[in-house]
Amino acid sequence: MANIGVVTTATNNQVILRNYVSGFPKESDLYIAATTVDLRVPPGSMAVLVKNLYLSCDPFSRIRMEKPDPSSPASVARAYSIGKPISGYGVAKAIDSCHPNYKNGDLLWGRVGWEEYSVITPTPSSHFKIHHADVPLSFYTGLLGIPGLTAYIGFYEICSPKKGETVFVSAASGAVGQLVGQFAKMAGCYVVGSASSEEKTKFGYDDAFNYKEEKDLSAALKRCFPEGIDIYFENVGGKMLEAVLENMRTHGRIAACGMISQYNLKKPEVLHNTATIVHKRIRVQGFAAVEFFDRYSKFLDFILPHVREGKLTYVEDISQGLENGPSALIGLFHGKNVGKQLVEVARV
Amino acid sequence: MANIGVVTTATNNQVILRNYVSGFPKESDLYIAATTVDLRVPPGSMAVLVKNLYLSCDPFSRIRMEKPDPSSPASVARAYSIGKPISGYGVAKAIDSCHPNYKNGDLLWGRVGWEEYSVITPTPSSHFKIHHADVPLSFYTGLLGIPGLTAYIGFYEICSPKKGETVFVSAASGAVGQLVGQFAKMAGCYVVGSASSEEKTKFGYDDAFNYKEEKDLSAALKRCFPEGIDIYFENVGGKMLEAVLENMRTHGRIAACGMISQYNLKKPEVLHNTATIVHKRIRVQGFAAVEFFDRYSKFLDFILPHVREGKLTYVEDISQGLENGPSALIGLFHGKNVGKQLVEVARV
Repeated sequence: MANIGVVTTATNNQVILRNYVSGFPKESDLYIAATTVDLRVPPGSMAVLVKNLYLSCDPFSRIRMEKPDPSSPASVARAYSIGKPISGYGVAKAIDSCHPNYKNGDLLWGRVGWEEYSVITPTPSSHFKIHHADVPLSFYTGLLGIPGLTAYIGFYEICSPKKGETVFVSAASGAVGQLVGQFAKMAGCYVVGSASSEEKTKFGYDDAFNYKEEKDLSAALKRCFPEGIDIYFENVGGKMLEAVLENMRTHGRIAACGMISQYNLKKPEVLHNTATIVHKRIRVQGFAAVEFFDRYSKFLDFILPHVREGKLTYVEDISQGLENGPSALIGLFHGKNVGKQLVEVARV
Repeated sequence: MANIGVVTTATNNQVILRNYVSGFPKESDLYIAATTVDLRVPPGSMAVLVKNLYLSCDPFSRIRMEKPDPSSPASVARAYSIGKPISGYGVAKAIDSCHPNYKNGDLLWGRVGWEEYSVITPTPSSHFKIHHADVPLSFYTGLLGIPGLTAYIGFYEICSPKKGETVFVSAASGAVGQLVGQFAKMAGCYVVGSASSEEKTKFGYDDAFNYKEEKDLSAALKRCFPEGIDIYFENVGGKMLEAVLENMRTHGRIAACGMISQYNLKKPEVLHNTATIVHKRIRVQGFAAVEFFDRYSKFLDFILPHVREGKLTYVEDISQGLENGPSALIGLFHGKNVGKQLVEVARV
């Protein structure tokens, strides 16, 4: 029986990639286009139609804007397609579902398109149902999502912190950095952060500096860490990594989940002191939170009580409306955000 | 009572540092001088007079020839002194002992001077008594000494090898490399080595290449590892490390115990692809065997049966006589040695 009189389509605004990017991305590399979405998913499929509420602005998107290298399957797999909506992590609400684990009205976070509605096929490695909605839903793009898991795995598992150790966090006010700083304080460490403005260095660190105001990064680190750095949470790479290696203590640990300073450079900055890793017996570990999803529920058990009791704070920089998505995402690479950058597409 | 008629002194030839070194060391940076040694150690001391039998030629000596930086306690502590004998690891025999754990005639290995006789104060962190003399004593400078422990800890503990994984060893014929190659075969890995001559690549590797004959190191690695490298045992650094990072597989491990290619450079080579560590979630671990002396007896239990059964081979490059010590040591930095380089000062 036909659904006479029932609206079965809607306008679906999308953020589309205009062209592949080299160097810094510009707002004009993206554009908004309106398409139409069917509000019913095909019966017999495993699909879920979701209404997107919050979209996460992630540095990794820049890598996906790069022209794919046909000889690299990884590069081809991650690259966005020209003329199609970009994608990332977001918080969404199921509108119509053929998936046995999702019913209409369910909240979830995971991979969605940068658009008002997405049709997704949830899997345990790409989507998580939201069972705790007493905290701000936007937190599932940050504190309770990939950035939170990144900070948790990187700091507690990879850096093996001990009370009294010294910790340095670059991108101190960012989605991940602001959490690492708080975790380090909770662990009884002395923690220093660096960011790109005075405002951003006010995140409860023991000490902080604005890297844009320092002529000599190594000297700045020496001033903050006269005895050296035990743990470095690496978010930026480039010159900062070099200065950190100079100031690292013997047996230091570096957890590296990103090197945002390098993503927009046609030629990456070079590292001059690689041998320091040997001389100081340093461990450098690259990692990606998506490979630790098996720890997600343990992570939630740990972090939710801290959030509810107000022991952890989380600063968000929220852009309103999908139409402001491009500027929010591009702003990330110019350090415009204070706190976790995200886009509110709709409220629940 | 005076020891009338008993010889209580002897001539003690020594290898002396003439001046601090910058760039490649030369034989003339060292010289031989004869001094006199008292053949009795002071009663009441913990000292042992030893006759040196074998001296190990180690890349690390180059770092100790560098002019110390007064602002760096580590640099001051490790630097040799001008006009004094250089030192390193060696095999020796106790001639006169006031130490309760050592009696005359005991064999030991550990830190000694580059001289015919040394007065040492043995400690558990610097000297090991030799309990197994059925194997060549010279092996305690290599296979059964620091290089052996380095290969064992680096490969088994730091690289966590799994059967079927691919392993690359630079300095494949060196003191450490030749062992890592054999350990990797024993672990069921596919192992490729690189060295500076055709002769040196014949060490039982699945494949090998002479890096001096390759125009493009990355292409050479791609040829040997079409599917990429899981484990890299880093001995050289510089351009080789860069080429390896390009060819590393996701979740690759790099154990780094030395970067000999960098020691003689006034300006170290730069690394252009540091961000690969993040993209491929690679672990890089600097380490030094001297920090794993607590594992030494376990290591001996593991390795001695293999040596006795002929399952492990070890190629040595032995220079005869202390007077040939300087050329043997300098030759190391020009890749002249085939196998573990050492100096035979005397036979037991």
